[in-house]
Amino acid sequence: MTGSEEGSVSLEVLKTKMAEFAKERDWERFHSPRNLLLALVGEVGEVSEIFQWKGEVPKGLPEWEEKEKEHLGEELSDVLLYLVRLSDICGIDLAQAVLRKLELNAIKYPVHKWKNHSA
Amino acid sequence: MTGSEEGSVSLEVLKTKMAEFAKERDWERFHSPRNLLLALVGEVGEVSEIFQWKGEVPKGLPEWEEKEKEHLGEELSDVLLYLVRLSDICGIDLAQAVLRKLELNAIKYPVHKWKNHSA
Amino acid sequence: MTGSEEGSVSLEVLKTKMAEFAKERDWERFHSPRNLLLALVGEVGEVSEIFQWKGEVPKGLPEWEEKEKEHLGEELSDVLLYLVRLSDICGIDLAQAVLRKLELNAIKYPVHKWKNHSA
Amino acid sequence: MTGSEEGSVSLEVLKTKMAEFAKERDWERFHSPRNLLLALVGEVGEVSEIFQWKGEVPKGLPEWEEKEKEHLGEELSDVLLYLVRLSDICGIDLAQAVLRKLELNAIKYPVHKWKNHSA
Repeated sequence: MTGSEEGSVSLEVLKTKMAEFAKERDWERFHSPRNLLLALVGEVGEVSEIFQWKGEVPKGLPEWEEKEKEHLGEELSDVLLYLVRLSDICGIDLAQAVLRKLELNAIKYPVHKWKNHSA
Repeated sequence: MTGSEEGSVSLEVLKTKMAEFAKERDWERFHSPRNLLLALVGEVGEVSEIFQWKGEVPKGLPEWEEKEKEHLGEELSDVLLYLVRLSDICGIDLAQAVLRKLELNAIKYPVHKWKNHSA
Repeated sequence: MTGSEEGSVSLEVLKTKMAEFAKERDWERFHSPRNLLLALVGEVGEVSEIFQWKGEVPKGLPEWEEKEKEHLGEELSDVLLYLVRLSDICGIDLAQAVLRKLELNAIKYPVHKWKNHSA
Repeated sequence: MTGSEEGSVSLEVLKTKMAEFAKERDWERFHSPRNLLLALVGEVGEVSEIFQWKGEVPKGLPEWEEKEKEHLGEELSDVLLYLVRLSDICGIDLAQAVLRKLELNAIKYPVHKWKNHSA
């Protein structure tokens, strides 16, 4: 039903869902690269607004109310959805690109150089 | 090898890879929610820099050189990786949140209201 | 009354007004560097939302309604106010820094190299 | 020499300087509203990168090296310069808008409601 296994979701499924969503609503004409990029920036702004007056917050957000965490999940999801859609509209295979980037990062930051060192 | 099927990649796999990557390098101490959020903002800035002087660009970026599209793929991947890591560190199940958000969006924007209408 | 001459406003006046505004409301405890930076990111997101579905728009925004331009002016002002406050709280003299940056830019981008050339 | 009094700088002076800078280099054709907005987002990203791995930092940045504070001043200045230029190109009088916004904020957040209360 969700296109996922064991609670996860693939980038491919999200790409397809976003494409269908836009097509069904005749929104493809609005989904140009820079429109989607600005929409992404807007959603990152909304995530920032959630954190802006809080000072540093610990991992897991232990003191946040459930409602606030749910709101955060929605805004993080909006960032993800626009990111997936932006990549698709740009003709970028995000799944392939991210695997390649992980490999590049592993080369750029070798374990032996960083373990037991500060950044 | 990639934890994906048919060329795609799951959010769960990315979450696990990012967690391992940080742990191996002793970077967990840097991965607080707001540190990761600012890193995400930085990467969105790098995507913006790629598009900033171009004016509107058509879907598929037909006139871009391969090298520039590769660079874009790297920056989009960085946004994705920090987004996945930020969600994890906040204790947000991004896979579940994004499926829920898609359902909320479908309710908020019913097809019959948008088809054949402008936004 | 406005601390300006001939319709303009100085950075120094804005800095003082923001400091007074925070002090009067007991908001100084919220105005840490990273809180203000995230607030700035949030306001940039709001500016982006105004432009996100419009495609390219011409200089002067000739087709925008007055109300929309007023809204844009408010969001641009919020960016400016948080930028001025962030600089102040960081101990950065923004007025001095911006004059220095203009000089650096003039050296970095000499007129003779750019006139009649594309970027 | 700087168009400022007592070490400050007016928005009007910055607007004029940015307009001259662009005109001298034939850059006016690049300075469309959305190009400048994306450039602004890029610069905010660069400010974020300076703060991203630091955790919370105290007011005045007491432990930062002079060189790092200088770098921060440059990036904050870039945000300001693009903000001023974006406003100008949009036909927004930023000086007038910011004074109006300060008045709106004073009405929206009355002193008596906030003093001695938490946000």
